[in-house]
Amino acid sequence: MFKFKLIHQDKKTAARRGEIQTNHGMIETPAFVAVGTAASVKSLTPEEISQTGTQIFFVNTLHLHLRPGEKIIKKLGGIHQFMNWQGPIISDSGGFQVFSLAREEKVKLVRITGDGVEFRSPWDGKKDFLTPKKSIAIQKDLGADIILCLDDCTPYPVSYQQAKISLERTHYWAEKSLEAYKKLKSRQALYGIIQGSVFKDLRIASAKFITSLPFAGIAIGGVSVGESKEEMRKVLNWVVPLLPKEKPRHLLGVGEIDDIFALIKAGVDTFDCVMPTRLGRMGHILIKAQNSKLKAQNFTYDITKAKFAADRKPLDPDCDCYVCKNFSRAYVNHLFRGRELLAYRLATYHNLYFINRLLKKIRQAIKEENLEKIEKEWLD
Amino acid sequence: MFKFKLIHQDKKTAARRGEIQTNHGMIETPAFVAVGTAASVKSLTPEEISQTGTQIFFVNTLHLHLRPGEKIIKKLGGIHQFMNWQGPIISDSGGFQVFSLAREEKVKLVRITGDGVEFRSPWDGKKDFLTPKKSIAIQKDLGADIILCLDDCTPYPVSYQQAKISLERTHYWAEKSLEAYKKLKSRQALYGIIQGSVFKDLRIASAKFITSLPFAGIAIGGVSVGESKEEMRKVLNWVVPLLPKEKPRHLLGVGEIDDIFALIKAGVDTFDCVMPTRLGRMGHILIKAQNSKLKAQNFTYDITKAKFAADRKPLDPDCDCYVCKNFSRAYVNHLFRGRELLAYRLATYHNLYFINRLLKKIRQAIKEENLEKIEKEWLD
Repeated sequence: MFKFKLIHQDKKTAARRGEIQTNHGMIETPAFVAVGTAASVKSLTPEEISQTGTQIFFVNTLHLHLRPGEKIIKKLGGIHQFMNWQGPIISDSGGFQVFSLAREEKVKLVRITGDGVEFRSPWDGKKDFLTPKKSIAIQKDLGADIILCLDDCTPYPVSYQQAKISLERTHYWAEKSLEAYKKLKSRQALYGIIQGSVFKDLRIASAKFITSLPFAGIAIGGVSVGESKEEMRKVLNWVVPLLPKEKPRHLLGVGEIDDIFALIKAGVDTFDCVMPTRLGRMGHILIKAQNSKLKAQNFTYDITKAKFAADRKPLDPDCDCYVCKNFSRAYVNHLFRGRELLAYRLATYHNLYFINRLLKKIRQAIKEENLEKIEKEWLD
Repeated sequence: MFKFKLIHQDKKTAARRGEIQTNHGMIETPAFVAVGTAASVKSLTPEEISQTGTQIFFVNTLHLHLRPGEKIIKKLGGIHQFMNWQGPIISDSGGFQVFSLAREEKVKLVRITGDGVEFRSPWDGKKDFLTPKKSIAIQKDLGADIILCLDDCTPYPVSYQQAKISLERTHYWAEKSLEAYKKLKSRQALYGIIQGSVFKDLRIASAKFITSLPFAGIAIGGVSVGESKEEMRKVLNWVVPLLPKEKPRHLLGVGEIDDIFALIKAGVDTFDCVMPTRLGRMGHILIKAQNSKLKAQNFTYDITKAKFAADRKPLDPDCDCYVCKNFSRAYVNHLFRGRELLAYRLATYHNLYFINRLLKKIRQAIKEENLEKIEKEWLD
């Protein structure tokens, strides 16, 4: 079962309040999608993921394919049972991860062909070939609620000609993915992905093409691989107006605080970002910015700094999360300085809670037609 | 407030069931004392520490003195408030840690004199001098419920002559500690420490000397620095019969499963050991041994082995802890192989729960006069 219900359309912007119904429960949108790469939202238990207000998170197909392998996860009852999370999960296609792990030299890319991506496993050096069909098959074994087509995530910067070739590949793979999906009789919700880099006509062509296919939802890719925030906004303004109102829209890999207002106002329903979790593990704590310095630091401050060593205040005095109710900055500072495992948990928990609480306020604001008021309060 | 109440004396052995009342609640004895070195039982929240059945844990004075410093902890309301744990806490004197960190080359030992230990801070290279008086003062600032005298933990192996000199120092420092304790009007429970290595007359002399002083409790040290289990048992048999019944007895640094029965039968009330937490973080999972191989491995198995990659069973099929009720060996194996932070949490949680559940059974068995039955069930 997969259904998108539009609850309220903002009058002044394209922002919308909706609900995505899945086999593992409902997602109130707009929603932040956390990242749980290898079937773990790093450092947290499923109960804590839920307590932070997280409704859904990403798992990365390539990581799980390489370890422990989709067959083991299938044997153990699928990804939900494997990690004991009974809420919605989305998996990516594995494509983006092949490219990004190749950049980090964790995966050796062999070649990209019209059919797929050839690479070597970082664990045993064995050659592996990821195709649209194989990605769908792996994702079926994993069993996430929402799955993605294999796409060719166009690098940036890129020439128009290269972007066009890359987009054609993405479109071909979208059709191949749908074919495989139908053949496997998967009951997951398959999202198509719009690419086209920063070129208006390519983006429009891609939006038209992807929406012409019977996908359950639409993802927008290729705006988080080096493009500016301005370019991201432009892309959304070209693309989103062309999308059907009745399908949910996901923006891939974007979610800093100032992006959030822009993408929601452009009509995006869900978006994922590693920021709250990854920055949290580095000691960067989300807090509502009271000054331009904090804004420039993407609403985070570095709790590991010596000046917090005796600070009795909670991480965020305005936050009512478990961490802020129970621990001081001094203690979290101490834990980070000693590289105590609890440090990463506490920061991750607070950051996820923080961003989900903001999303909750935004959902409320959309219903009450005062989204711009809350945006002003946060960004001005 | 500090009070030891003897609830039941076993008829066949020296084992006893008791209660230690502290300002932060009661400890049912015999009790396992977990280790929370730098004001964190590694990876766990205070709520989880409590859920594992842990009643009390150690913090290490040297670690906290070096970072964040006792003055910061005092300013923040003491160790309980600092880490938000409202149960009993015990701190060591810092002496043992200076020696053991020096062995690991994390601290540079300068010299040991009659007055104390001189060393250099690993953080800023500054010289520092730990004396009985200073240790008591630091421990007062930290504010644990139970504190220890600075002692000279005799290395092993050692000559009789060296052990004797070392013991004299321990005894001198015990008197100095008491002096400082009285002067500072500390309301913590100060334990004296019995040393004497593996020499019967030294151990007996130490037991007599330490029990002649007005300590709230008696700790037995120097049986975990290289001595065999047989030697540990001998020491206990020499020493414990000389201890007053009305004071609690703590054994320092011992707690493997087979030790537990021996030390409890010898009349020890509390004992600390890093085993469940440290081994847990390495992927060694405590389980009731069904065969001699597991017994030889101290009742642990290595969950990181490939053979557990698709094992649906919980870590310990007989365990009802949160981890065993919610996750498979396959998932924990996967988390360890990916070095996911959640792995360390789950293993630590289970191991602490496991050992505390055993202690609960032992406490019950003492009351019911069938300690030997449960020992047989576990060790035979």
